[in-house]
Amino acid sequence: MSEAYEEFKRRSSQITQLRSILQSLSWDQETMMPEMGAGHRALQMSTLAVIHHQKLTDPVYGELIARLEESAGTLDLWGRASVREARRQYDKATRLPESLVKELAETSALSYEAWVKARGESDFPAFAPWLSKMVKLKRSEAECLQAADTTLYEALLDDYEPGAKVSKLDGLFAEIRPALASLLERITSASRQPRPLPAGPFPVQGQETLGREILSSMGFNWKAGRLDTSPHPFCTSFSPLDVRITTRYSSTEIGKSIFGMIHEGGHALYEQGLDPEAYGLPACDAISLGIHESQSRLWENQVARSRSFWEYWFPRLRRTFAPHFDDFKLDDFVFAVNKVAASPIRVEADEVTYGLHVILRYELEKALISSELEASDLDTVWNERMQEYLRYRPANAAEGVLQDTHWSQGLVGYFPTYLLGNLYAAQLFEQARRSFPDLDAKISSGALLPLREWLREKLHVHGKTLTADELIERVTGQRLSATYFLDYLEAKFGALYFG
Amino acid sequence: MSEAYEEFKRRSSQITQLRSILQSLSWDQETMMPEMGAGHRALQMSTLAVIHHQKLTDPVYGELIARLEESAGTLDLWGRASVREARRQYDKATRLPESLVKELAETSALSYEAWVKARGESDFPAFAPWLSKMVKLKRSEAECLQAADTTLYEALLDDYEPGAKVSKLDGLFAEIRPALASLLERITSASRQPRPLPAGPFPVQGQETLGREILSSMGFNWKAGRLDTSPHPFCTSFSPLDVRITTRYSSTEIGKSIFGMIHEGGHALYEQGLDPEAYGLPACDAISLGIHESQSRLWENQVARSRSFWEYWFPRLRRTFAPHFDDFKLDDFVFAVNKVAASPIRVEADEVTYGLHVILRYELEKALISSELEASDLDTVWNERMQEYLRYRPANAAEGVLQDTHWSQGLVGYFPTYLLGNLYAAQLFEQARRSFPDLDAKISSGALLPLREWLREKLHVHGKTLTADELIERVTGQRLSATYFLDYLEAKFGALYFG
Repeated sequence: MSEAYEEFKRRSSQITQLRSILQSLSWDQETMMPEMGAGHRALQMSTLAVIHHQKLTDPVYGELIARLEESAGTLDLWGRASVREARRQYDKATRLPESLVKELAETSALSYEAWVKARGESDFPAFAPWLSKMVKLKRSEAECLQAADTTLYEALLDDYEPGAKVSKLDGLFAEIRPALASLLERITSASRQPRPLPAGPFPVQGQETLGREILSSMGFNWKAGRLDTSPHPFCTSFSPLDVRITTRYSSTEIGKSIFGMIHEGGHALYEQGLDPEAYGLPACDAISLGIHESQSRLWENQVARSRSFWEYWFPRLRRTFAPHFDDFKLDDFVFAVNKVAASPIRVEADEVTYGLHVILRYELEKALISSELEASDLDTVWNERMQEYLRYRPANAAEGVLQDTHWSQGLVGYFPTYLLGNLYAAQLFEQARRSFPDLDAKISSGALLPLREWLREKLHVHGKTLTADELIERVTGQRLSATYFLDYLEAKFGALYFG
Repeated sequence: MSEAYEEFKRRSSQITQLRSILQSLSWDQETMMPEMGAGHRALQMSTLAVIHHQKLTDPVYGELIARLEESAGTLDLWGRASVREARRQYDKATRLPESLVKELAETSALSYEAWVKARGESDFPAFAPWLSKMVKLKRSEAECLQAADTTLYEALLDDYEPGAKVSKLDGLFAEIRPALASLLERITSASRQPRPLPAGPFPVQGQETLGREILSSMGFNWKAGRLDTSPHPFCTSFSPLDVRITTRYSSTEIGKSIFGMIHEGGHALYEQGLDPEAYGLPACDAISLGIHESQSRLWENQVARSRSFWEYWFPRLRRTFAPHFDDFKLDDFVFAVNKVAASPIRVEADEVTYGLHVILRYELEKALISSELEASDLDTVWNERMQEYLRYRPANAAEGVLQDTHWSQGLVGYFPTYLLGNLYAAQLFEQARRSFPDLDAKISSGALLPLREWLREKLHVHGKTLTADELIERVTGQRLSATYFLDYLEAKFGALYFG
């Protein structure tokens, strides 16, 4: 038994290493690689992806998993969770016929290219046939992966939020949508509105220095991580001891880099908080995209868009970017970075409207997969629903249905995790507040480390030994609920706009 | 036939990609990786090294090579050279028993650690047992690799300078050693001596800007390469379209970074000059370490330590680092960067004494492998020979026998390629001069690109379709000779010290 487990660990670790090498190459591509390196980088990555897939689908690995499942009782917590996770990955990888995997990869690449071009020209009809093809392939994929008790959409969702159910998401989102719409309407017609933020110019050096100070105070470990720049900010991890984040600097919009660094920093603390001793085991990984997003959102929104946070950091920001904030008071600034308004672009949306953008995408992708909606009709439905949910009509397809890359690359089932992240974040942060009655005082004195320690102990170190549902219930004593998120928004924006 | 060749190319390309991924990970480790990432990076690399070895030693690959050898006449030049090179690599990889490979890897790691410690404490006896063990293992390795007509030492040398013969090196070095010793003696007693270079401080930014300008003028392609910093400067390549060099900056020694960047730039031009279309074939690679070193040395010494070069660049250097060179004339500067003096450390040696350092190491490592010399006696013999060749007695083992890392890591047969590089460089540069009668005028006007074009056309693009001997004979019309190198030194240093 122990011998089988040792061999399972050895093979799992090899699979983990190969995946982490792919991540290293991808990080380099986004941050360092000279432009002409792209062609050979693609070859390196496809060579390695094939080897990774071979190792993951090796029948010997499958037999080891089966043997260990029979005697799971003799394994410890990490072992049981790792066998469970390995089964999940093995089944996913082996259930898809090679021809489908190949067609998906090729179509994704072409469809992504078509999307880039179509977005540039704001031409949805040019992209629609690709989307239609991609949806068909994703439906085939879902049919291969589908378990007895899951829908096609759930089979895809499982890639990003393991075990999540449509009935649950439908229920949560049905509660959230009217509440957000109502809050947005009240805010839009409020007489009190924030001043616009100054437009700089903000020197990059100052943005980076301030960002690094904030990341340090959050407990980002620089000996086990780096910060670089890239066109699209991201966080990636090669192990809990090598976690890399990126940002981009705008000389006119100060929020872009600062909140971006904090957001990616939240992701990074999760990765740095995984148990380095367990690294290599399938269970030593983030639970889900939703839980991952909860960590970035909690730091970005609950912490860094709070008045408490800026009590400590606003004087520093003011000094760094003098004289731009000389006539800004702390409250002006906090109000300004929390401005709410209907706008077309999801990634630029505020905390209130963001959820509406996500719900719209969730509904549409479900309808595409279930064939209730034809790809060619998507732009019309998109615009109608934007009007209905946000009272906003996109000026063109580029700021409407073509704005996100996800569907072009076959990422169906990904969007809802963004909103789940907000719900998890609100519920977890409320629990942190209850655990530390002086949490706000700590934050306003610049002490962020206690919160990181709490998150690490309650969440990060456990990896996938718990499911998302189990984690939330264990940490907060309750199942996931929309109440915390909605209460948080009402309290915060009520105070800002009507307080 | 063509089908076998296609499969051979596919497998060869996969092997090349895996090796280039290892190089990517190694580059990241030296330049970017946070310190705590080292442990998992070692796991990534050993996982990948095992897979690379498996692919290289796959019997199916061996059979393909054998089939293609039988019908080599039907292949083109690249195909024939690639099959030849694949055979060489396959035999090397399959002839070593796995147990020996493992023991070599483990002993190298431990022996390197022991060397770091021993050098720190200048304690040769502490390192001698490790050296002894390593020499024994390298002898076993050589016995496995040895062909019918080669000596044990040649079997090791072949890793770095394929096909090189001891009789040839012995002949060249026997001519060079007394000539260098005599030139050194005359220079040491010359009444004219250079002024010392100013000691700065030289701002790093200025060093980097100037270095980048020089690299650009040499034709380094920034869209297919990068420059970064690392403790030990190096050049590495992930493909001809992604070549990375590093340097280090000293605020007091201006030559370190400038000549270092030019040296690594010379290596980089070779890598960037390989045919990107042929990349992935075993023959699309540098011919040998000696030829590689000729490219770095030619740019560093023949070009960048010449008066012509500084006619163009000295005014720029002077402006960049004002006022440090205000009272330096061009001739003062050129003399100063060509100062010759016996000194203990190889990597800091000038062009005249460098060869003596190399010959000493070559003789000693040959004697270790042939068992004429015991590892425990190495320090005594080292010091005697330093005295004899350089009239210099090392103050301690750290600046003597322990200064280089090579032997601790099992790199036996590597040293002579450094001196071969100087010989190749002198012979090639003399030929370039003959091809361009106005080469010096071009260099003094800042036009370095014609020289790069010549090197690319004559040398870089051919990869391993020629051996080192064939290349030198084809480009210069003669076999390798020590004459060009010795004539170059006599002319250059004669003019500086006695002209």
